Amino acid sequence: MTATAPETAAMRRALELALLGPRAGVNPQVGCVLLAPDGRVLAEGWHHGAGTPHAEVDALSHLAESADARGATAVVTLEPCNHHGRTGPCSQALIDAGVSRVLYAVPDPGEASAGGGERMRAAGLDVESGLLRDEAEEAIRPWLTAMRLRRPFVTVKWASSLDGRAAAADGSSRWITGPAARDDVHRRRSEHDAIVVGTGTVLADDPALTARSARGLLEHQPVPVVIGTRPVPPGAAVRRHPHPLRVHATHDLGAVLASLFDDGVRSVFVEGGPTLASAFLRAGLADEIVAYVAPTLLGGPVVALGDLGVPTIDRQRRLRLTSVDLLGDDLRLVARPRASDTDPHLVDTTTTTTTKEL
Amino acid sequence: MTATAPETAAMRRALELALLGPRAGVNPQVGCVLLAPDGRVLAEGWHHGAGTPHAEVDALSHLAESADARGATAVVTLEPCNHHGRTGPCSQALIDAGVSRVLYAVPDPGEASAGGGERMRAAGLDVESGLLRDEAEEAIRPWLTAMRLRRPFVTVKWASSLDGRAAAADGSSRWITGPAARDDVHRRRSEHDAIVVGTGTVLADDPALTARSARGLLEHQPVPVVIGTRPVPPGAAVRRHPHPLRVHATHDLGAVLASLFDDGVRSVFVEGGPTLASAFLRAGLADEIVAYVAPTLLGGPVVALGDLGVPTIDRQRRLRLTSVDLLGDDLRLVARPRASDTDPHLVDTTTTTTTKEL
Ligand SMILES: NC(=O)c1ccc[n+]([C@@H]2O[C@H](COP(=O)([O-])OP(=O)(O)OC[C@H]3O[C@@H](n4cnc5c(N)ncnc54)[C@H](OP(=O)(O)O)[C@@H]3O)[C@@H](O)[C@H]2O)c1
Ligand SMILES: NC(=O)c1ccc[n+]([C@@H]2O[C@H](COP(=O)([O-])OP(=O)(O)OC[C@H]3O[C@@H](n4cnc5c(N)ncnc54)[C@H](OP(=O)(O)O)[C@@H]3O)[C@@H](O)[C@H]2O)c1
Repeated sequence: MTATAPETAAMRRALELALLGPRAGVNPQVGCVLLAPDGRVLAEGWHHGAGTPHAEVDALSHLAESADARGATAVVTLEPCNHHGRTGPCSQALIDAGVSRVLYAVPDPGEASAGGGERMRAAGLDVESGLLRDEAEEAIRPWLTAMRLRRPFVTVKWASSLDGRAAAADGSSRWITGPAARDDVHRRRSEHDAIVVGTGTVLADDPALTARSARGLLEHQPVPVVIGTRPVPPGAAVRRHPHPLRVHATHDLGAVLASLFDDGVRSVFVEGGPTLASAFLRAGLADEIVAYVAPTLLGGPVVALGDLGVPTIDRQRRLRLTSVDLLGDDLRLVARPRASDTDPHLVDTTTTTTTKEL
Repeated sequence: MTATAPETAAMRRALELALLGPRAGVNPQVGCVLLAPDGRVLAEGWHHGAGTPHAEVDALSHLAESADARGATAVVTLEPCNHHGRTGPCSQALIDAGVSRVLYAVPDPGEASAGGGERMRAAGLDVESGLLRDEAEEAIRPWLTAMRLRRPFVTVKWASSLDGRAAAADGSSRWITGPAARDDVHRRRSEHDAIVVGTGTVLADDPALTARSARGLLEHQPVPVVIGTRPVPPGAAVRRHPHPLRVHATHDLGAVLASLFDDGVRSVFVEGGPTLASAFLRAGLADEIVAYVAPTLLGGPVVALGDLGVPTIDRQRRLRLTSVDLLGDDLRLVARPRASDTDPHLVDTTTTTTTKEL
C-alpha cells in the first residue's frame, strides 16, 4: 500500500463524506473524493441511500464543467462495485470517466457486487486497496458484519438500574433512565433497519416501536418485528406503526435473522425484554451491546438479563467496552463481545486510571 | 463571613494539609495555616493521627524561632477543639499564643470537643466560621457524618458484572474485576477503620480481610468484623488478621454500628456479600456506594444485590453519582443515596453528554 499525503487526506475526507449518508438501509455508507494528478480535490460525493447514485457516480457528477476526470485518482472508502444494480457498476463508471488510479479502503464483501477492483485493474487502472482500512471497517462495521455473516448486525440494548434490574418487583419500569438516555434510544432506533422485541414486551408494555423525538416521528423508521408464539393483540400499538408489523412465531433466532436479511434488513436493534435479550446473547448473536445504567437501585426479581448459560466463572462472557458516556444522570456503555479469552485486550493489565469527576 | 484573599488561599492550603493526615481513625483530618497580619504564611500544620498534636498545635510548633504568633490569624479547617484530650484544648493554645483572629471552615460536631469558637470569642479573639465550608465538609464527610449520626460512616462496596451478578451460577467469582480494581479495593480498605462482611462470605470465600498491595500489607489495617449467627470456623483466615476479629452474632445492624462507634470506629467498609450489602441498603444505612462493574456478562441466579424492599418504581432508591472511573478494564462508580426524591439533582433534566472514548 503506497499512498501520498493528499491521497491519505482524501481518504479521511471520504470517510467523513460516507457518514453523511443514511446509516440504515440495504446499502453501505460510502464516500468518494476525486483528486487531480497534482493532488487538488476535483470533486466529492457520497451515497445518499438506496435508489440514488453510488458515491463514485455522485462524485463524478459534481465535477466542475471545466474539469474532467481523465488522469484523476479516485479515493473511495469501499471497493467500487461491479454489479448492475439500479445504477450500473461504479468500477465501469470510473473506467469510462478516464480515471487512472483508484484507492479504496475496504474490499466489497458483497457476493454480487465484489470484483470491481479486478475489473478496473484489467482495464489498466492503477488500483490499491487498504488505505485507512481499520478506520473504514469501523465506520461501516454493521453493514460489513451483515454482509460477511449473511445476517443482520445485531445490537442488543437494555436499560437497567445499577444493580442490573429492568423493573421494580411489580414490573413497573417507567422511568428508570432519564430523558437524555431515552432520546438516545430513539436516535439509535432510527439508525437501524428493524427493531425487535419479544411477545412478552408487547403484552406487558404495548410499545409503539417507532423512533421519535420531541418533535414527533424521526425521518427513518425501523421495521417493527415481534418474535414469539403468543399472538400480538389486534389493538396493539405496534400495529399502528408506519411500517407493517413482522411477526415471527418462533424461538429460532437464527431463522428470524436469515429471513430479515433476505428481505434487505442489515441491522436490528433488539430492545428486549430480558428473555429475548438473554436468548440473543446466549446464542452468540449479539454484535454490539448498548446498556443504559441509571444511578438507582431496585433489587427484587426482575433482572435485565436472565440466564446466559454461564455455569462457572471461566465461561463468563467478557466484553470490550468501546465507550462510556454520561447522558443526563445515566451512564451509557457500549461494548462488544470479545472474540475469545485470548483477545489481546483481555490480557492488557495496564492500570491507568482515567477519572471523570461528576 | 468576611475573608481576605490571603485568608481564602490559606484555607485552601489548610484543606490540602488536612488530607496529609490519616483518613482512618477516631480523629478527623485537620489542617492549619498561621498568617502574619500582612498575610504572609508564618507556619503550617496538620493532624498526624490519634495521639499526636492537633493541627493548630502542630502549626504553632512550626513557627520559626524568630517568629511568634502574636497578632496572627489562624486559618483552620475545623473549629479548634475545646476539650482536654491527650493534647489540651486547641482553642486555649491559640489564645495563649496570642493569635488575634481565627477562621475555621466547619464547626466541630463532637459532643465533648465543641465550643472552641465560643471560648476564643470570650477571650476577645475575632472568630469567623464557614470559610470554604462546603469543600471542608466534603473533605471530611465520613468523620462528620459519623459524629453527627453517632454511628460509623458506612461505605457499601460490591463488584459485579455489567448485568449485576456477583458470581457465576456455581458461585465462582475469581475474578470478575481486574487487578486495578482489586488494588483500589485494598487502598479503600486501608482508609476505613473496619471492614465488615457477613458469615456467608466468610464461609464461602474464607477471606483474609486485610488491606494489601503487591508489596504486602498496607500500613493501616482495618479491624475485621463479621456479622451473623453462624460460627466463624476456628481456622478461618480472618482469625489470623493483625487485628483481633470482632464477631457480632446478630442481624441488628444498627446495634452493631452503635457498638463499633462506642469503640472508636468512625468508618466501615461493607464488602458483602449480597445478603449483608442488601440489608445495609434496605435499612438506609449506606452513606456511600462503591460499585466496580466489570465489562462481562454472567446471567444466572447470583445477583450482587438482593431484595431492597422496593415494591414499585416510585419507591426506587435513586443515587447521585459522584464519580465514574475506568480502572483497567473495569468501571468504578461512586454514588450516594439521594436525600429524597425532591433532591434538586433528580429533577435536573440537562441533557449534556460527556463522552469518554475508550
Ligand atoms: N429495561 C428494559 O430495557 C426493558 C426492555 C423491554 C422490556 N422490558 C420489560 O420486560 C418485561 C417483559 O419481559 P419478557 O422477558 O417477558 O419479554 P420479552 O423478552 O420481550 O418476551 C419474551 C418472549 O419472547 C419470546 N421468544 C422469542 N424467541 C425466544 C427465544 N429464543 N427464547 C425465549 N423466548 C423467546 C417468547 O414468547 P412466546 O412465549 O410468546 O413464544 C418469550 O415468552 C416487561 O415488563 C417490560 O417492561 C424491559
Ligand atoms: N461480588 C462481590 O462484591 C462479593 C463480595 C462478597 C461476597 N461475595 C460472594 O457472596 C457470596 C456469599 O453471599 P451471602 O449473601 O451468603 O453472604 P453475606 O452477605 O456475607 O452473609 C449473609 C449472612 O449475613 C448474616 N447477616 C448479618 N446481618 C444480617 C441482616 N441484617 N440480614 C440478613 N443477614 C444478615 C446472616 O448470617 P447468619 O445466617 O449466620 O445469621 C446471613 O446469612 C459468596 O459466594 C461470595 O463469593 C461477592
